[in-house]
Order: sequence, then C-alpha cells, then structure tokens
Amino acid sequence: MNHNQTNPPRKSRPAAQTGGRKRYVVQRPKKQQTANAPHRPPHQEPAPQNKNRSVREQRRTPVRIIPLGGLNEIGKNMTVFECSNDMFILDCGLAFPDAEMPGVDIVIPDFTYVERNKDKLRGIVITHGHEDHIGGLAYLLKKVNAPVYGSGMTIGLIKHKLEEQGLLNKVALNVVESRKTVRMGCMAVEFIKVNHSIPGAMGMAIHTPAGVLVHTGDFKVDFSPIDGGPIDLARFGELGSKGVLALMADSTNAERPGYTQSERKVGDSFERLFAKAGNRRIIIATFSSNIHRVQQIINMASKTGRKVAVLGRSMINVIATALELGYLDVPKNTIIDIENMNQYPPEQMVLITTGSQGEPMSALTRMAMHDHKKVNITPLDFIIISATPIPGNEKHVTKVVNELLKSGAEVIYESMYEVHVSGHACQEELKLMLALTRPKYFIPVHGEYKHLVKNRGLAIEMGIPKANILLASIGNVIETDGTKLDVVAQAPSGRVLVDGLGVGDVGSIVLRDRKHLSEDGLIIVVVGINKASGDVVAGPDIISRGFCYVREAEELIVQAKQLMSHALSECSVYELKEWTSLKGKLRDTLSDFIFEKTKRSPMILPIIMEV
Amino acid sequence: MNHNQTNPPRKSRPAAQTGGRKRYVVQRPKKQQTANAPHRPPHQEPAPQNKNRSVREQRRTPVRIIPLGGLNEIGKNMTVFECSNDMFILDCGLAFPDAEMPGVDIVIPDFTYVERNKDKLRGIVITHGHEDHIGGLAYLLKKVNAPVYGSGMTIGLIKHKLEEQGLLNKVALNVVESRKTVRMGCMAVEFIKVNHSIPGAMGMAIHTPAGVLVHTGDFKVDFSPIDGGPIDLARFGELGSKGVLALMADSTNAERPGYTQSERKVGDSFERLFAKAGNRRIIIATFSSNIHRVQQIINMASKTGRKVAVLGRSMINVIATALELGYLDVPKNTIIDIENMNQYPPEQMVLITTGSQGEPMSALTRMAMHDHKKVNITPLDFIIISATPIPGNEKHVTKVVNELLKSGAEVIYESMYEVHVSGHACQEELKLMLALTRPKYFIPVHGEYKHLVKNRGLAIEMGIPKANILLASIGNVIETDGTKLDVVAQAPSGRVLVDGLGVGDVGSIVLRDRKHLSEDGLIIVVVGINKASGDVVAGPDIISRGFCYVREAEELIVQAKQLMSHALSECSVYELKEWTSLKGKLRDTLSDFIFEKTKRSPMILPIIMEV
Repeated sequence: MNHNQTNPPRKSRPAAQTGGRKRYVVQRPKKQQTANAPHRPPHQEPAPQNKNRSVREQRRTPVRIIPLGGLNEIGKNMTVFECSNDMFILDCGLAFPDAEMPGVDIVIPDFTYVERNKDKLRGIVITHGHEDHIGGLAYLLKKVNAPVYGSGMTIGLIKHKLEEQGLLNKVALNVVESRKTVRMGCMAVEFIKVNHSIPGAMGMAIHTPAGVLVHTGDFKVDFSPIDGGPIDLARFGELGSKGVLALMADSTNAERPGYTQSERKVGDSFERLFAKAGNRRIIIATFSSNIHRVQQIINMASKTGRKVAVLGRSMINVIATALELGYLDVPKNTIIDIENMNQYPPEQMVLITTGSQGEPMSALTRMAMHDHKKVNITPLDFIIISATPIPGNEKHVTKVVNELLKSGAEVIYESMYEVHVSGHACQEELKLMLALTRPKYFIPVHGEYKHLVKNRGLAIEMGIPKANILLASIGNVIETDGTKLDVVAQAPSGRVLVDGLGVGDVGSIVLRDRKHLSEDGLIIVVVGINKASGDVVAGPDIISRGFCYVREAEELIVQAKQLMSHALSECSVYELKEWTSLKGKLRDTLSDFIFEKTKRSPMILPIIMEV
Repeated sequence: MNHNQTNPPRKSRPAAQTGGRKRYVVQRPKKQQTANAPHRPPHQEPAPQNKNRSVREQRRTPVRIIPLGGLNEIGKNMTVFECSNDMFILDCGLAFPDAEMPGVDIVIPDFTYVERNKDKLRGIVITHGHEDHIGGLAYLLKKVNAPVYGSGMTIGLIKHKLEEQGLLNKVALNVVESRKTVRMGCMAVEFIKVNHSIPGAMGMAIHTPAGVLVHTGDFKVDFSPIDGGPIDLARFGELGSKGVLALMADSTNAERPGYTQSERKVGDSFERLFAKAGNRRIIIATFSSNIHRVQQIINMASKTGRKVAVLGRSMINVIATALELGYLDVPKNTIIDIENMNQYPPEQMVLITTGSQGEPMSALTRMAMHDHKKVNITPLDFIIISATPIPGNEKHVTKVVNELLKSGAEVIYESMYEVHVSGHACQEELKLMLALTRPKYFIPVHGEYKHLVKNRGLAIEMGIPKANILLASIGNVIETDGTKLDVVAQAPSGRVLVDGLGVGDVGSIVLRDRKHLSEDGLIIVVVGINKASGDVVAGPDIISRGFCYVREAEELIVQAKQLMSHALSECSVYELKEWTSLKGKLRDTLSDFIFEKTKRSPMILPIIMEV
C-alpha cells in the first residue's frame, strides 16, 4: 500500500488497444477542457473555451455508465464507467439479504460484465468504507485484478478486509487525497471531500472526453462536522460553473424534507445524557464505522472522567484502524481493555459496542439476552442506542430494547433524544448539490425506485427538464456523447448470493425450496422396488420434518402410509418400472390427501430405491 | 342475536356454586357503592359513604385479573376477570406471526385456564371489533360457550366471523350500548364509549366487590370524531371521583409525546389531495375496519362528483356490515359495482381498497404487481396509502409503492401529507385518562415491554407510586382485595399457532425444523439394509433440497455418496443392525464433510429402509 502515490505509473499497453491515440491525461482538474481537446472526434469543431454551454452541444467521444448495483435497491452499490478502451469501477458493495433469501449471508453484484471486459479495467475507485460500497470488493478481486483507490480511512478498512481473504499482497491499494485526480486511461477521476457518517468519504468528478460527470457518493452537508471540515462545496460549484454533463446523486433521504442535522447535534445530546446517567455505567451502541460518533463519545467520557472500553469485533477493528491512521484523537489512558473494566465503578465506565441494529450475534444483543461473557446488564446501566433501525430491523431492535429494560436498565432509543443523525442528504441538501453542479443530465442513484422518483422530483423543481433525467436500472448501458444521454444496451446484471463458501450456487430454485420448506415443512415417502421384477420390496415409509408434531398426528401418518401402500398396489408392473411417473403419482396422491386433511401443502418428496 | 338486550336473563346456578350469597347486581353504575355493601366480608367495618379513599383501604372479596395475551406483545389481547365463583373474559384476539413462525397463519392465546374453569364463565365482553380483540373468539367458542357482549358494530363483525365458522346459531350475541351494564355473577361490566379507529369502541368499568377496575380498551381522545361524538370523559371522571381501584390502560402509543390528531385531520388532507388528483382516478388503500376513514372518502367523493367502488374481500365485508348497521352514511348512487367502473372516466372514480400494509394477497398488492383482474394501474391513477406501516410491514409497503410508481401512477404515502392518524392515545391523552380516573393501582396493558415501561413512567409523573404500578406478564394471576394488588399465582398461558386446520400442532420443534430447513436446506441419505443379515442391499443415495444447485455441486454429491458408502463399509455387521446409532454416525460424518466443504449446516436426514 502506498499512501502517497496519487497518480500511479502508467501501465504500458499495446498500441492496438489504445487505438494508437494519445492518452487522456489530467494533471489538474481545471485543465480539463484543454486536455479534452485532442480527443474530440475529427468531425467536430473545436469548442470555444469561453462558452461552456455550447461545448455541451457538441458530440464527443461517448462515455458509458453501467450501474451494476444500487438502483432500485438499497446496497451493493457499483457502477462501471467506460470510454473507448478504458474502464474503471466506482464502488463495489454488498447488500444484506431480505426475508426472501433465508440462509443467505450476503448479496453481491453480478460481475459478468467486468469479467468480460477485464482487459479494459484501469482501476477501482471507492467513495467510502461502508459495506454497501466495499463489501463486494474481495469477491471482485478474486476474479479480476486492478489497483484500488480511496481515502486513507477507506483504504485502511479495505486493507483489513483483503487481509482476511489473503488478497492483500495481490492488490495495489492507493490512498488519494481530496482534490487529487487518478488517471483511468482516457478518463480521470477527481476525489472531492464530502460529509458522511464515516471519515474519508469522497464524491467523484469523472473527467471524460464527453464531459464531466459528478458522482456524489453517499453524502450530507455538515458545516460543523467532528473533523476534516465541511464538504468541498466550492469545488462542486467550480465544476458546475465550468459545465457538468451529468450528476449522479445519492437518493437515500430524498423523501425527507429540510436538512440533515449536523453530527455535532448528537454530541449535545450526549452531554445531557451523560449528566442524566449519573452514577450509572453508560453503554452506547452505534455503527462501528461511525468514527465521528465514537470520537464524541470518547470526548464526553474524557470530560466526565470515565474510561472507555470497546466491545464487538467490528467495533474493535474499525477503532484500531481509525487510531492507526489518526482519524481518532484519544486522550491518554482513556481507552481500557474490557478485562480491566471491573477495576472501575459503574460511574467511571463507558462501553462502546456494536449491536445498534439488534443483530442477533452482536455484543449488545448478547448482553440483552444474558449471553455475554463480560457484561451483565443491571439497573446500574444507562444504555443509549445511537442509531435508527434500518428498515427491516425494527423488530430486532425492539426485542433488544425490551430485554435490556427487563434487566432494569434505562434505555434511550427514541429519536426524541437526538442520539442519531443521518449520514445522507435531505431534500434541501440535494437541491444545493443540484444548484452548485448545474448538470445538463441527472441520474438519481442509491435508492429504491420511490427514492429515485423523489430525487427526480427535486431536480425538476430545480429546473432540469424531465427529459434530461434518467431513472435507470442496474445493467443499463447508459451512453452520452455530450448532446444526449440514453440507455443504449443491456449488460448482464443481477444479484449473486453468498452462502458460506458458496458464491452464486444458491439461486431462485434453491430459495423457492427453502421458502416452501420453511412454510409447510416436508413429507418424504420412501419405497424400495426391485426394478427387474417391479416388486415393492421395502416400505412405503413416511418421514416428516417441519410439518407437525408427529405424535399428535400419528393417525394422519398411518393413513398416509396406507394410502401410499394402496396406490402402489394399484400400479401395474409396467407402472412400477416407470419411476418418474410413479413418483409423480405418489406425490399428487399424498399431496391431495394432506391438503384435504390439514389445509397445508408441505413439500412431498417421493424417493424410490432400487433394491 | 338480540340487539336490545343488555342484561341477559340470569342463568340459574346451584346455591353451592354461588356460596349461597346474594348475587352482586348493578342496575345503574352510580349505585355501585351501595350495591357493593352486602359483599363486604363480615370482619370489615362498613365503609363511610362519603369517604371514597378510605373505602379503598378495606380488605374485600378479592378479584383476580389474569391477562392471557396482550402484555409484552402486540396483539392477541385477552384478559380474564374472576371473583368468587364468577369469571368473564374481556376480548379474545389474535396476533400475526412474525418471521420466527414461518408458515403459521395466526397466533391465538392459550385457552387452558378458561377451559379448566369453564363452569365459572359468565360471558365474554369485547371492547371493539379489531382482529387483535376478536380474532381468537371463534377458536375459544369451539371450546367453551358463553354469551358475547359488544357494541353494535363489534357484534356485527363477530356475527360475520362466526357465520364463516358455522358457530352463529350456537352462541348468544348481545349488543350493549355505552353506559349500559352487563352482569357477570358477582361482577358487572359497564360499557363506556371511547374513540378509536373503528366505530363502536368501548372502555369497560368492571364493578367488583373489591372495587372498580377500569379497562380502557384501545382508545384515543378525539373531540371531533367523524360520528358518535367524543369519548365519554365525563363517565371516566365520575368513576374517578367515586374511586377507581385499578386502571388498565392501552400502552400502544405510550412512546409518543403530545396528542394523537383527530380523524378529521385526514379529511382535510383528502380535500387537498382530491384537488391535486385533478382528472386522475383516485385509489385509496386503508384498513377495512376504519369506517370513519371510509366515510370521509365517501364524503369527498360525493362532494367532487366521483363514484366509489370497493375492492378487497375484507373491505367489502366490513363496509356491508357498517351499511347494514347504519354506521356509514352513503348518498344514493355513490357506491357502484366494480364491474361498472368502466362506464365512468378516471376523474369520476374513487376506488377504496385493502392492501395498505402491502399484504401479499391484497387487492392493492395485486394491482401493483399487474395481477389484478379488474384494475390496471396507469399514469392516470392517483394513489393514496392512508395508513402507516405496522412494524414488520415496512418492506412490503415499500415494494408495493415502488411497483405502483413504476406504472407511472402518483403515490402518496408519506406521513407529511397527514393521510393517516393513529387510533391510540399518545402521552398527554394517557395522562388525561390517569387524571380522570385517579386509580389506586395501575396496570399498563396492550404493548411490548418497552411500551408498558413508558406508560408506567407517565403514571409515575402523574403521582402514582411506583409500588402501585404493576408491569405484568401473561399468565400472571393478579389479585386485589382493595388494599393491595399482587401477582399471587401463575396460570397456563402462551401462544397457540394456527396453521391451516391445525390449531396447536405446530410447536417449537416444528418451527425449529422449519427455520433450519429454510436457512440451509436438507440432505437426505437413504440406504436399504437387510436387517437379518446386516447387508447393505440398496443405496446409499443422496437427495438434497434447498441446499445448492445440484448441477453445480455434482462433484460434492458424488463425494458425499462415496463417503457414505465408505462409512457403511467400515461398519461391523453389529453396527449395521443398530440403526439409531448408525443413523447418528452417518449424520455426523456427512455433516462434518459438508461443513468443511461449504461452511453450511444443512439438515442431514439419514433414512434406513428395511429390505
């Protein structure tokens, strides 16, 4: 890993591959228009340098944008940018499985398009270190190799992830500062600081022969962030003044009016709540990656003479990375090992833990269920859940809150205490971004369809013609030459399910079977047949799982067995040798019987053994 | 069903059962103190009639309160009240299964305690007609019989339900008006009008020898409801002045500060939204039981010259019941049959439909998925989801919204439009109820533990000593003789799962198997053995479901088969005859192999056939 290198050495490529043309080189973003010139196709007039708007009206070498994740869904954000013979990837995240994907660990994008075009791949830029932006990276890097670029914090988190997968020495990791640019063949990617709920978050300006594309990444506008200063609005404005061809903006909070509160607001709440906690131990659960939140907890602990202990694997890992890279400022002797916790009375302790989403295996959930080795919840605990449940997690969080309360602890979990602020831009911030960048085209990204529609609504309010706004889908090959922006083709795309070591071996048939098994259980009919003679030599036996208490349904099972015996006895020798149709007959007969008796439809699995 | 009878004829009972004592009869609630006197145990002094507080300090015939549902959970509300040899039930609801109960249709309370004491059962009073208050009734009435009492709307809905179950002629249904009292042996239940999101909702004052217990049912305070007038605050206050021994109050919204908005607020929003819809067809989804909401939609439709068509089985049923009983006021020719919808242009139509929770089989969901026979969603539709997602339903609702938007319709679903108000009291209303009833003891009901804790907090703020507030659990036998209130015993309680025709035959083992099957699938090893000789005469064969694509895992299955063959070949003749241990050996061997290869733990099911 090289923390200083922002422009990596050019890879030498055969002339055929670059078409013999001069490579597009951007040393400083403001030279973009000039640098652009050599790439203008011969049939175009040179662009007048002082008239940006008219520049846009000229057809240029087209750039293609191919979202492979993050549209019409929350998570697995990934976008491919392609121009001539060059391609790079922006983000490579995972999504968490929903209730329709039982047993699945994570969901990653379909990488087929990247694999098919891997010769063009110049690099991977990452906006920030959240799982929905980096969680698919290790899987991608097992298929293709390319240098990875991100802020110090982002690269620190990726490094840890690749280390676990044994990939660290195989991949070039590069730290890029804000306002620095990375060359990607005929394109160049400029990193621009944004605010978000993790340090080192970046938006990207993608300088292409067709024009400048701006991708906000996940962002919010925070004028008083905990460190690193506010989002670089000036640079977004500068780009807007020069002419932005297309803006791709975060839609997560497009439904919410107004502005997202500053992270500092949470610190004010912590101040009040630390006072309220009095002589009780304070336990705060939050997202491990929210280092600013952790910083504020440490500040308050230090101010009130409390020690801090950290619980939960991901919390420990991320805090270690943040400390190593200088993203956390911790007064000496503030953080102690959890093993030494008992040396301090409750009023001198703060625990920072994972589990703010009620995740079943997290430290907070285990505390709530009296299943944590080191922490026992009592009325001397004051617990703050510094997060909002992500849709789908509400019931998990409620369960944890209920159990913590039953132990007599006080639990702060409502939004009324302002113990959490979002990391995503609300409507007024999204409008600010539109006002600064003044894009010709707008592509809302990162959100379900309803969020994209809301974000489109904001752009229309800001004067962008509806025809210039694209509600895209993953797999769309979006092309723009500066004069138009259209979906011109479809790339392979979709979801790949990861279950244990298996990547992609759980698909719709397996999921359908899992769902069926989970709802109605299974009845197996097993029978041994001598294929030569057609004699039934064993069974039929009936076995069930997940259907009903067999003890209470003994009679039903006996009847089912009789029914199967009868069905077999009615078969001709010919039928007893045609096992496919015989299985179908047994299945249908038993299925009808069971439904009539129970109004349930378990999976019926006839097994015929050749004896 | 007798709509007029409020005091049913006394059942004659043997003197031994009533202990030879005079029955407690309340003709008018205000005579309660007098009527109470004969039941004071002989060792007690007569209560001075002008000092209510001191009355409470005397020990009297104890009353027992046994919640069988609705505490530490949302749904299946049911409480038993018992005094001497008399018992009655207040509500008998269902709960909807959560993600941990796949395949389960509904959840009902455990009726064991009622069945064991059915000789004491005098009746069942129902506060209102929501499923979480009446949904278990048909199951209960199959086990015990007792007259059922409720408001006209409540009884109308129950009647429909019992009709479906063929129980209608077996059960006495009685309509009770507000301020009327039903005798239940030595107790008497007085119905008191409350506001809620269904017409005919009642709170109950339970006049007992030990004192007056007030149960709010589900309630809110609405000074401008759509019909029937506001909650009878005066009567609650009157009871409070005379002395309330214990209050049991709805905790659903105890986390929410302030007041719940009036239902009329939604009408104001509808007015604005009907104007916004312009010449589009309006489709409104809401809870079928919210007749006040339906009334407001009909009013707006009539005012704007639109016809109304009704979709969804439960919506059609409830509206029919409400019309029949006079709870809905519909101008002539306003409601049309859905079949005639095409005779009117979009700007003259309003559809009222089920599906506000994104229920998979509901009319709105089918419209969204282009799976509805009669309604096709187009950009000429303006859709209002007049409801808030119940926790756990958020993702279903989002999916429906996304799909409706994709058809080009405008969809109103955010709270910012005020298209829904809650039916439950917020903090200030709960305080109002406490201020009016001034109970000696307080038992928060209807809610998860966190809600009960919040409601307790409000009571403490209102001056009720913490020691006089009970956070109870289902099955607690709570006893009070007027001088104390304690949990004195435990009654059988819990959840009974209904799956198809099966009531209670799906329990924790079946659920555990279903969950296991859903997460990792199943591998079956089947082998035929001659038990006499110990020879393996068929198999081993491997069959899997819900595990992985077998085509992609052919090698794994071949290896597993070899492993099983090898394991069998290593067994002694003795081992091949001991099938229980042989199955265990096959299971463990295969399980270890599969986990090592895939990091998954499917259910392994060894089946040995005797040949």
